[in-house]
Amino acid sequence: MIIILKRIILASKSSDRSEILKRALIPFEIFVTNIKEEKYKTKFPNAIELVKELAKAKMLYAKNELIKKKIDGIIIAADTIVLLNGEIIGKAHNEEQAFSILKRLVGKSHKLITGIAITDIQTSKIIFDTDTTIVEFLELTDEEIWQYIKTNEWKGRAGAYSIMDKANLFISKIIGSTSNVLGLPMHKIYQILKKEFGLHLF
Amino acid sequence: MIIILKRIILASKSSDRSEILKRALIPFEIFVTNIKEEKYKTKFPNAIELVKELAKAKMLYAKNELIKKKIDGIIIAADTIVLLNGEIIGKAHNEEQAFSILKRLVGKSHKLITGIAITDIQTSKIIFDTDTTIVEFLELTDEEIWQYIKTNEWKGRAGAYSIMDKANLFISKIIGSTSNVLGLPMHKIYQILKKEFGLHLF
Repeated sequence: MIIILKRIILASKSSDRSEILKRALIPFEIFVTNIKEEKYKTKFPNAIELVKELAKAKMLYAKNELIKKKIDGIIIAADTIVLLNGEIIGKAHNEEQAFSILKRLVGKSHKLITGIAITDIQTSKIIFDTDTTIVEFLELTDEEIWQYIKTNEWKGRAGAYSIMDKANLFISKIIGSTSNVLGLPMHKIYQILKKEFGLHLF
Repeated sequence: MIIILKRIILASKSSDRSEILKRALIPFEIFVTNIKEEKYKTKFPNAIELVKELAKAKMLYAKNELIKKKIDGIIIAADTIVLLNGEIIGKAHNEEQAFSILKRLVGKSHKLITGIAITDIQTSKIIFDTDTTIVEFLELTDEEIWQYIKTNEWKGRAGAYSIMDKANLFISKIIGSTSNVLGLPMHKIYQILKKEFGLHLF
């Protein structure tokens, strides 16, 4: 059993991020932020900068709201994007968009980039980091892509796929961290919480 | 929804293998085999040969039993081992063994190798394959390793860790397929079932 003296607050509504933390047996609470991601995309065309700024915006939003509610704790915020040949690819909003994203990703490699921003509400210390995983897809027929879309795994996920679910059928290789592909690079979070915030996750 | 006209029979009691298939929305049944793995280890000192022979033994065991019961279907059998500097590392049988395995794996890379054997009971066609993923661990203190062992993730798993759970804290990188680390290289199974057995998993 782990005894963590600080509350950990995940500033994200992603079910994948919640699942990773739960499966790592880390007690946490969720605080859903409300950031207009679209305007950041035009302001920060560089992928690494974009995910960092989005993670920061989510973290600051959560921090302000939690201070108002006099809630203390460590906030973990994150943002994930897909980068294909230098182009930032976000989330699909309907099945047609999911198809066009997946159609572009099959048969080649893309980068999955997550930015994280971690802060202690009390001390105001902030640590940023990013993690990149290369993900390689097999070729798929259009019919297979459509069948995959029917699983609804594309919903709310950068790149329109879920590495924990049916997408394993066409992910032939990754280089980097699996948890990063799920939206939280856990090896980096573990190290930052230990070194920078004195929190031990084991 | 997928309509699969053949029964898929997983010849394994591994909960990780079941979970991957379930999460990939593939209907299957489990048939637990009873193979004495120890005698194979001395007979087949080569890692690739060993996982192939063990997957084959599990597949044949399941096939014979299912034929007796007049059950038809496609059998998928698999065996997974860890290879560290050329040495085959199996499963731990108690906490002390789990500690000594993890103590050797931290701070470096090892190979996770899975052998698969797939057969159609009716036609007797058999396909073998193997998949290798390189897994890199962060350094951990002895205390952290012991804390990790208390989660019981080591039980029944090659290398004494679970990539889907708390081990994400110390897996800094993989090169290869995540599903392979879980014991079933799904991208290879998808391709074999499609090309060799005419089964479509989408």
